[in-house]
Amino acid sequence: MTFENLSSNKSFGGWHKQYRHRSDVLNCDMRFAIYLPPQAADGQRVPVLYWLSGLTCTDENFMQKAAAQQIAARLGMALVAPDTSPRGEAVADDEGYDLGQGAGFYVNASRDPWSRHYHMYDYVLDELPALVEEMFPVNDKRSISGHSMGGHGALVLALRNPRRFHSVSAFSPIANPVDSTWGRKAFTAYLGEDTAGWEAYDASLLMRSFANEAQVPALVDQGQADNFLSEQLKPEALQMAALVRNYPLQLRRHDGYDHSYFFIASFIGEHLQFHARHLGLQAPAPGSWS
Amino acid sequence: MTFENLSSNKSFGGWHKQYRHRSDVLNCDMRFAIYLPPQAADGQRVPVLYWLSGLTCTDENFMQKAAAQQIAARLGMALVAPDTSPRGEAVADDEGYDLGQGAGFYVNASRDPWSRHYHMYDYVLDELPALVEEMFPVNDKRSISGHSMGGHGALVLALRNPRRFHSVSAFSPIANPVDSTWGRKAFTAYLGEDTAGWEAYDASLLMRSFANEAQVPALVDQGQADNFLSEQLKPEALQMAALVRNYPLQLRRHDGYDHSYFFIASFIGEHLQFHARHLGLQAPAPGSWS
Repeated sequence: MTFENLSSNKSFGGWHKQYRHRSDVLNCDMRFAIYLPPQAADGQRVPVLYWLSGLTCTDENFMQKAAAQQIAARLGMALVAPDTSPRGEAVADDEGYDLGQGAGFYVNASRDPWSRHYHMYDYVLDELPALVEEMFPVNDKRSISGHSMGGHGALVLALRNPRRFHSVSAFSPIANPVDSTWGRKAFTAYLGEDTAGWEAYDASLLMRSFANEAQVPALVDQGQADNFLSEQLKPEALQMAALVRNYPLQLRRHDGYDHSYFFIASFIGEHLQFHARHLGLQAPAPGSWS
Repeated sequence: MTFENLSSNKSFGGWHKQYRHRSDVLNCDMRFAIYLPPQAADGQRVPVLYWLSGLTCTDENFMQKAAAQQIAARLGMALVAPDTSPRGEAVADDEGYDLGQGAGFYVNASRDPWSRHYHMYDYVLDELPALVEEMFPVNDKRSISGHSMGGHGALVLALRNPRRFHSVSAFSPIANPVDSTWGRKAFTAYLGEDTAGWEAYDASLLMRSFANEAQVPALVDQGQADNFLSEQLKPEALQMAALVRNYPLQLRRHDGYDHSYFFIASFIGEHLQFHARHLGLQAPAPGSWS
């Protein structure tokens, strides 16, 4: 098995590390990043928050820009950030930023040329957590979060697998991709033109037809100055689905905030505390948060 | 006067903004970034921390990676990040990453072809603060900080102009550039081979020959796993100078930390609190720091 440590940076008393590994599910080498809080170095096995990034991102955007590590260090939570698609010269790609490499959309592609590599749904759900739980001092308590395309991925994974995640959150998710330009383009390519196959990857449709007993608590933050809000994101569809199904969704709208990591950084602390509560972590006393 | 707003992002209740302006001192257009905390929008004039970045950086590295804005928002402090050199096709450059554009070293160059544009010392000391204090709701209380080449710049500016800055701090500064590969290369190019002219831009030599009455309190953090520590940074020279002159320098060494922004993010909160004390800002109560 290929499993190579690419970088290590001490950060807030813990460690940020990047790894390359062979993915059988994606049929290529993949890079991911993990933040291990100080508690993990002290021999504890800590829970994991998986973070799914948006279009064009890699594992680096969240780890460098979200200001999440100081909160994770205090709470005793590991953070894992996968890449946003399979990668490499042998992997199908497209000239657009919103299809192909950097734009895996967290689906299992069924259409050529994408089906050979593009199985990000299975990768994030099964292969990556199994690897992480084998190689690092973490336990099997998982939560999941993400931004934009990654917010879509996080919501879909949690709604379809409520026993696998203690909580889910999202920033500016593509909440109803069958009704967005990005989603329709990606789903047509990866899944084909028959829209019946799209529903399994649409958080609003999944929530509306929700049949699982277990409900994963959900927190969604949306900036009101987000350029993509009306055409791509459609949080109102998710909110309506939650109302219809009485789903435990808290959707918050924030005046003036846009689609950038400045928005994510501004509220990531509240997201990590939300996940910490559902993962059974004790928040430190206020005085220790300086 | 050219003064153009390039971007605005709401962040922690305040605003991150980038501007382009015509610099007379540098004889080219320049970009800088400012973070205005919520207090500035409430009609207060807030003090400013100037941040000088390291080799290859622009205004963006600190603003995106340092996790400083949440602390500045709580303290009521503006942050200003200039670029690291003059820029543009008409501006002299070099193939090396450590000379020319992205490597201005915060000096006033006296040699061709550099002397036409490379006056970053005067730009950071005079032109930029005058512009910032004219255009934004800030007062004339200033502190200064920086990383690596920017740590060198911050220390030199504060040591030579103790009435202009209330406090100075640095991460991994090039503390004794006349004794570093980077410093000798840059000073030879910008200032000429006569090393007598270099002393005015070497923090350790300046501190050893310190003749100013006013002493600007200084905080320096250095990671012990920093790849550049022994060849380029030389914090021991600064420490020795402080001992000889009884200078108020606190130099801290941190096991395991490297030269990256993960190190900066880990301790930027303590730096901002250090500056806040010297700028006369009241730290919020611990309970409000969640």
